[in-house]
Amino acid sequence: MSKKTGNRQKNKPPKVGKRHRKLGTAPGTVTYLGNREGSPSKIECITYDENDFEKRVIATPEELLKQPGAGQTQWINVVGVSDEQLMSRLGVVSDLNTLVVEDIVNTEQRPKVDEYDKYIFGVFKMLYLNAEQQIVKEHVALVLTPNRVYVYQEIEADVFDRVRQRILEKSGRIRSRGADYLFFALLDALVDHYFMILEQTEERLDQLDNEIYTEPTQHTAYKIQQLRKEIINLRAWMGPVKELLGRLIQSESTLITKDTQVFLRDVLDHAVEINETLHIQREMAFSLMEMYMSSVSNRMNEVMKVLTIMASIFIPLTFIAGIYGMNFSNMPELQWKYGYFLVLALMIAIFMIMVVYFKRKGWF
Amino acid sequence: MSKKTGNRQKNKPPKVGKRHRKLGTAPGTVTYLGNREGSPSKIECITYDENDFEKRVIATPEELLKQPGAGQTQWINVVGVSDEQLMSRLGVVSDLNTLVVEDIVNTEQRPKVDEYDKYIFGVFKMLYLNAEQQIVKEHVALVLTPNRVYVYQEIEADVFDRVRQRILEKSGRIRSRGADYLFFALLDALVDHYFMILEQTEERLDQLDNEIYTEPTQHTAYKIQQLRKEIINLRAWMGPVKELLGRLIQSESTLITKDTQVFLRDVLDHAVEINETLHIQREMAFSLMEMYMSSVSNRMNEVMKVLTIMASIFIPLTFIAGIYGMNFSNMPELQWKYGYFLVLALMIAIFMIMVVYFKRKGWF
Amino acid sequence: MSKKTGNRQKNKPPKVGKRHRKLGTAPGTVTYLGNREGSPSKIECITYDENDFEKRVIATPEELLKQPGAGQTQWINVVGVSDEQLMSRLGVVSDLNTLVVEDIVNTEQRPKVDEYDKYIFGVFKMLYLNAEQQIVKEHVALVLTPNRVYVYQEIEADVFDRVRQRILEKSGRIRSRGADYLFFALLDALVDHYFMILEQTEERLDQLDNEIYTEPTQHTAYKIQQLRKEIINLRAWMGPVKELLGRLIQSESTLITKDTQVFLRDVLDHAVEINETLHIQREMAFSLMEMYMSSVSNRMNEVMKVLTIMASIFIPLTFIAGIYGMNFSNMPELQWKYGYFLVLALMIAIFMIMVVYFKRKGWF
Amino acid sequence: MSKKTGNRQKNKPPKVGKRHRKLGTAPGTVTYLGNREGSPSKIECITYDENDFEKRVIATPEELLKQPGAGQTQWINVVGVSDEQLMSRLGVVSDLNTLVVEDIVNTEQRPKVDEYDKYIFGVFKMLYLNAEQQIVKEHVALVLTPNRVYVYQEIEADVFDRVRQRILEKSGRIRSRGADYLFFALLDALVDHYFMILEQTEERLDQLDNEIYTEPTQHTAYKIQQLRKEIINLRAWMGPVKELLGRLIQSESTLITKDTQVFLRDVLDHAVEINETLHIQREMAFSLMEMYMSSVSNRMNEVMKVLTIMASIFIPLTFIAGIYGMNFSNMPELQWKYGYFLVLALMIAIFMIMVVYFKRKGWF
Amino acid sequence: MSKKTGNRQKNKPPKVGKRHRKLGTAPGTVTYLGNREGSPSKIECITYDENDFEKRVIATPEELLKQPGAGQTQWINVVGVSDEQLMSRLGVVSDLNTLVVEDIVNTEQRPKVDEYDKYIFGVFKMLYLNAEQQIVKEHVALVLTPNRVYVYQEIEADVFDRVRQRILEKSGRIRSRGADYLFFALLDALVDHYFMILEQTEERLDQLDNEIYTEPTQHTAYKIQQLRKEIINLRAWMGPVKELLGRLIQSESTLITKDTQVFLRDVLDHAVEINETLHIQREMAFSLMEMYMSSVSNRMNEVMKVLTIMASIFIPLTFIAGIYGMNFSNMPELQWKYGYFLVLALMIAIFMIMVVYFKRKGWF
Repeated sequence: MSKKTGNRQKNKPPKVGKRHRKLGTAPGTVTYLGNREGSPSKIECITYDENDFEKRVIATPEELLKQPGAGQTQWINVVGVSDEQLMSRLGVVSDLNTLVVEDIVNTEQRPKVDEYDKYIFGVFKMLYLNAEQQIVKEHVALVLTPNRVYVYQEIEADVFDRVRQRILEKSGRIRSRGADYLFFALLDALVDHYFMILEQTEERLDQLDNEIYTEPTQHTAYKIQQLRKEIINLRAWMGPVKELLGRLIQSESTLITKDTQVFLRDVLDHAVEINETLHIQREMAFSLMEMYMSSVSNRMNEVMKVLTIMASIFIPLTFIAGIYGMNFSNMPELQWKYGYFLVLALMIAIFMIMVVYFKRKGWF
Repeated sequence: MSKKTGNRQKNKPPKVGKRHRKLGTAPGTVTYLGNREGSPSKIECITYDENDFEKRVIATPEELLKQPGAGQTQWINVVGVSDEQLMSRLGVVSDLNTLVVEDIVNTEQRPKVDEYDKYIFGVFKMLYLNAEQQIVKEHVALVLTPNRVYVYQEIEADVFDRVRQRILEKSGRIRSRGADYLFFALLDALVDHYFMILEQTEERLDQLDNEIYTEPTQHTAYKIQQLRKEIINLRAWMGPVKELLGRLIQSESTLITKDTQVFLRDVLDHAVEINETLHIQREMAFSLMEMYMSSVSNRMNEVMKVLTIMASIFIPLTFIAGIYGMNFSNMPELQWKYGYFLVLALMIAIFMIMVVYFKRKGWF
Repeated sequence: MSKKTGNRQKNKPPKVGKRHRKLGTAPGTVTYLGNREGSPSKIECITYDENDFEKRVIATPEELLKQPGAGQTQWINVVGVSDEQLMSRLGVVSDLNTLVVEDIVNTEQRPKVDEYDKYIFGVFKMLYLNAEQQIVKEHVALVLTPNRVYVYQEIEADVFDRVRQRILEKSGRIRSRGADYLFFALLDALVDHYFMILEQTEERLDQLDNEIYTEPTQHTAYKIQQLRKEIINLRAWMGPVKELLGRLIQSESTLITKDTQVFLRDVLDHAVEINETLHIQREMAFSLMEMYMSSVSNRMNEVMKVLTIMASIFIPLTFIAGIYGMNFSNMPELQWKYGYFLVLALMIAIFMIMVVYFKRKGWF
Repeated sequence: MSKKTGNRQKNKPPKVGKRHRKLGTAPGTVTYLGNREGSPSKIECITYDENDFEKRVIATPEELLKQPGAGQTQWINVVGVSDEQLMSRLGVVSDLNTLVVEDIVNTEQRPKVDEYDKYIFGVFKMLYLNAEQQIVKEHVALVLTPNRVYVYQEIEADVFDRVRQRILEKSGRIRSRGADYLFFALLDALVDHYFMILEQTEERLDQLDNEIYTEPTQHTAYKIQQLRKEIINLRAWMGPVKELLGRLIQSESTLITKDTQVFLRDVLDHAVEINETLHIQREMAFSLMEMYMSSVSNRMNEVMKVLTIMASIFIPLTFIAGIYGMNFSNMPELQWKYGYFLVLALMIAIFMIMVVYFKRKGWF
Repeated sequence: MSKKTGNRQKNKPPKVGKRHRKLGTAPGTVTYLGNREGSPSKIECITYDENDFEKRVIATPEELLKQPGAGQTQWINVVGVSDEQLMSRLGVVSDLNTLVVEDIVNTEQRPKVDEYDKYIFGVFKMLYLNAEQQIVKEHVALVLTPNRVYVYQEIEADVFDRVRQRILEKSGRIRSRGADYLFFALLDALVDHYFMILEQTEERLDQLDNEIYTEPTQHTAYKIQQLRKEIINLRAWMGPVKELLGRLIQSESTLITKDTQVFLRDVLDHAVEINETLHIQREMAFSLMEMYMSSVSNRMNEVMKVLTIMASIFIPLTFIAGIYGMNFSNMPELQWKYGYFLVLALMIAIFMIMVVYFKRKGWF
């Protein structure tokens, strides 16, 4: 039992409760809520335009006060947000509202998009499968300014690797477009990874469907239940993206060009598909449970039939044997020469009749 | 078991997961997602107006650079979209956005309609029954330009055959109207075929209803579950058409004339009916499962009654026989002359009483 | 079994599938979808104003080219719509769009209202109980022109009889008002009949409720299931009326006067009540099934209790009898003078204890 | 059984079906639908202003043609609406539309509010508990004119008694305000009584919850089902009030002053709370049924365990006794001196092992 | 049993029914509905600006007639609202509408926000866990005027303690901002505490999930049911906050500055998250019940299998023993030398066959 319980703890969705650490603090208080306290932050700055590309590590936030050159786009990649002081300094340097910085380090913040005059701020959930094929959820905060995109992550996952690679390719479209296109490309990568998660949940649904049909156990029910919970959580993490993108597309902010909005519409298409798929998977998981219950009932029926057949055939026969086991002094049949054989014949006849009866009933 | 599992694989709805092949590629990348790689594409061009009709096969996409004559309408029928390069060339020749070409070869794209300045682009699901009466889903992309309709299919299904025939008839309305009417006629044929699918699912619902009432087995539950899944999938494929048509009808694009909009409203009527029917069928499938569960419970009740009756009647009788099978030296009844017959009479009396009792209870 | 199946076929709701007869035909093709092919059509024309009343049978549609006199209202009653050619001629004479004529003969058309410049066209479902108290659904199409109302029915049901009678009464309000009031009166009669259907379904719900409480059988579950299906179908047939009336009331067509709109609002009230009642009945039918399941479980509990009591009492007693039926040479009790009677006393004691035990448990 | 059935009839919600009495009559036909035909109507007129108060019984409707004096407000209280002729005369005298009079005597009319130029008409359901604590539903129609409020009831319930008392108190706010305030006060009294009903249903929910936990029987399921039905009916009767009040508050009619609208908003608050409470109670009733089912399953589990324990312990023991009851001539054990005692010891050992086994399983 | 029932009473959500105390009273009547009658009220006044801070207890409401100085903000904290007269006097002194005072003492008032010209009035539910980890719900009413915030509570809970502390800190943002910021800070503290409740319910869901998997009893079902009820109640208490905040943010009242609206939006974010979490928890609780039912069925299956195996193995063996226990004079086998041993061997063979059979079936 202990091993199973162990597995369950590992997979557990993050608690609402981490919140209570912040209980009663003033709004705008920068409090890290994740569980990677003390891991150092790493700030990386990728500067590029159509011709040049430069990547360097930033030592102090204040280096960022120097703006990129004209036509250049910068991707400020921050890995590790547990250092509350550093984050505050970064916020000041980047001219961010303290409420924004609060949300950057609040790893339990649900997906959101806030538009400010000078920047657009978004929180999303990065979802991917780890080596053990478990769903990992990471907090990602994005800030889009006219020539920079800030990316805040807890750990360096490989979700954005392809974007990085595309920047390296000199001829790539991403190089010739501005920060808003980079912002889109990152969102696109994020949402594309959601499909991998859905692919896995779909496979698990299929496996469970199979398992119910072939070898259902109580553990099957437990796995259905776990999958259901995960799908519910996925909806909370992925679901809001659709609405947030819709708002970005209809936004009147000058930070996002018309060209990029066309691309965002493409991501929105994916978000719509994701929501639909989640809806279908939820329905499937629900009907799996019903299916499981029906299979349990059927198996009980089978068990009952075996019992009933055995009991119905042998109880009357045993009764007959019992009669002739009685010790009355005057039992004429006992003295008959073929009494014993007659009774045996009778028993076989009853046996046959019962077998035929249950066969007719379709019980075996 | 293996055979059943085999059947199940065949029917399986397409995986979300094919997507991961595209993971991380730049948007607008033309990547074929179907499973017919390597099958050659065939481009056919039907040109017609009120008087003339011509049909020829196109060898290279560049032939399409020559526009049809004034008053003429062209149906460019592309069968096989797995050749990514050819599709890209076709897109360039037809002046299509790369995002559009991406969606044309993305056979897992959900139904959508996008309006561009010079054309309207739509993706739909073609649904029909194959020879084994299984539901087949094909990806269809339509592009409406002022004088051409492009149709992209994976294989040549006979869904559009009647439209083709109507073009052949010189007096047909379709000949005297433009590309938008052809576009409508194709949509109409597509949606009309949906009714055949619904007819089949309805029949299967009826059969299962019957099966539950006459001979329910665990396999019945399995078939209900499969049908439920298929209905859920049909909703994902057919459902969006209603909204897309609504948008086309309210569109301000000059590509669709007012006359054609009246006809599109008729297709919309059908789409509404389809959604309603799917809703009803889903509810029916749901209540079938409930019905099945109730029938399982009832049968278990029957099994239990047989067991209870047999046990309740014979267990007390066997007990009585057991008493007089005891070997006490002093058991006066054993010496009675009619002791044996008295006990037999008692047993028969108890038997009768039990039978009457259970009959009164309505147990048999 | 065959008899039951027979009954079920009779009651079956119309198939979606009749549609496929039309598969691939050009829109506007006049194709009869009902099952009364070959039954002759009868056209009747009732002309009336405040003073006069005339009723005659029309031989050829062309007679209708003569318009009614000023201030006169005409009710053109067409019974039997299976003659596709006649219907087309009637459509031409009445200046109806071919799409409208298509819908008139399409007996599977769902309820709809279309407004054209010169007329309003509506399709509704006429519902009434036949002699065997079965729900009969008929297709009715209504066309309202400035001075005429066309009524297309498949058979002559008595739903409109009272309207006819009210026209006969010289002092009736209906005589002094125009075609739109007649149109309203017909809709009112149609919707009023819906209440009779709901009354019957409600009664059946009550009967089933009673049956579950007194004598539930598997057939009860079947009847609940059938009723549920019928209620689902009723929603498809009656439900849209509410929205259609809402649209008629808000319509800006000059065909319906303000006065008549007040009356239509009254019909709308009824339609709202019908939808609510259907919603309640659906919920009731749903909870009936649950109630049935709970009663099945309870009865199984009862059966199990009988078995358990019988077995628990007699199995230990039989065991004791078995002990003293053993043939060991050295069994001192067997030689005791009152050994037999002591064992009998022990058995009675055990029996009493068991009875008291189960009584305490509340099992009987 | 007959007694139970009897009780059920009493509680039955009013049938949809009464409607059919009106089937086919012209709209505006004044037809009483209640079941108190022949009970005499009583018309009472309370006239008051800040200083004076007068109450008298009206003999003929025509007395009402005399309008109250300036600044005076009149409450016309009509008890008993079964006299269709009298109601029609009252309607004429009060200048009411015939459709309004139709709704006044239609005791099955669902809640509604209609605004006319000179008056506002509303139908509501008066709900209270009778002496046997059963929910009684009465039809109430209210008409608000500039200086009068007409109240039509079937019987004289005490719901409006407190309003009457407050009019008697000279210093009460009600005396110094107009007819619209009286209208509000009546609505307020009506809605306040709804809370008493909800209080009772809540108590019944609590009792059933307790019953399931202590002594669930099939009758418990029946009571849950009945309560569910009643809650569904309450929703149909109370639910629409929220929307109707919302409409009254946003109405532009001059009949309701701004001051009174503030008070109506307070009643709306209550109506919102009522709808919420009904929603919660419905959910509670639903989960009660589930809880009941789970308790039935649990009890069956208990029954099964008793049976299984008894059978599993004694069947093997009986078998052993059976062996040594066989009459083979050569059975060495039978001759052993302590054979009998060894077998007894074996039996006790098996018994102990079984008991320990089931105890370990947690079965008792 | 009595102890359990005792526990249940304690936890019971407040009754709708307290309302009936107010039945029939005039609107605006100040009637206390809580259950702390007679507990004395305490009025405390905290006055602060950027530099000063003063806290004193107010003896008579009339002291409040003296307004705070320019730039000063006052927090009037009223603990204990059961003294109806005092509350009325306070209302008069503060120039509040009597309907507002009615809602202040109506401890059962659902959450609401009303905007008046000179103040904004809100009722909320304060939720926290008491020492026994039970959810406690308290009624809180807030009134925001240009320079004062009135807080009415039933008892002094520590929910607002942190706000108080922040006022004490001279450099805190709260000191330099006006009454609207204080109003926001109080709301923020209120809503932040909701997360603690959700944290506890989530933990209980987890525990129950575990319990079902390890040791489900009927009490588990009861606890699921109780948790479900609590979650339903939490929705009624917490749910409306989202909408009320939305209204406050869009309000055009000058009482709330633009700056504070940004902060309110942050609270709104939390309210949205709370509603989502409640939705998820409700779904989880629902699926727990299903899971529980499936585990009950599974355990019954286990019980049945034990019974069936025991009965199926030993009943046939006992029958064989019965045969050779018969007393026929002519039973050749009885005289065979190794008859007994042959029969024993046969029995062992049958036993082995049965064991293998059930093992193959996977029953143990």
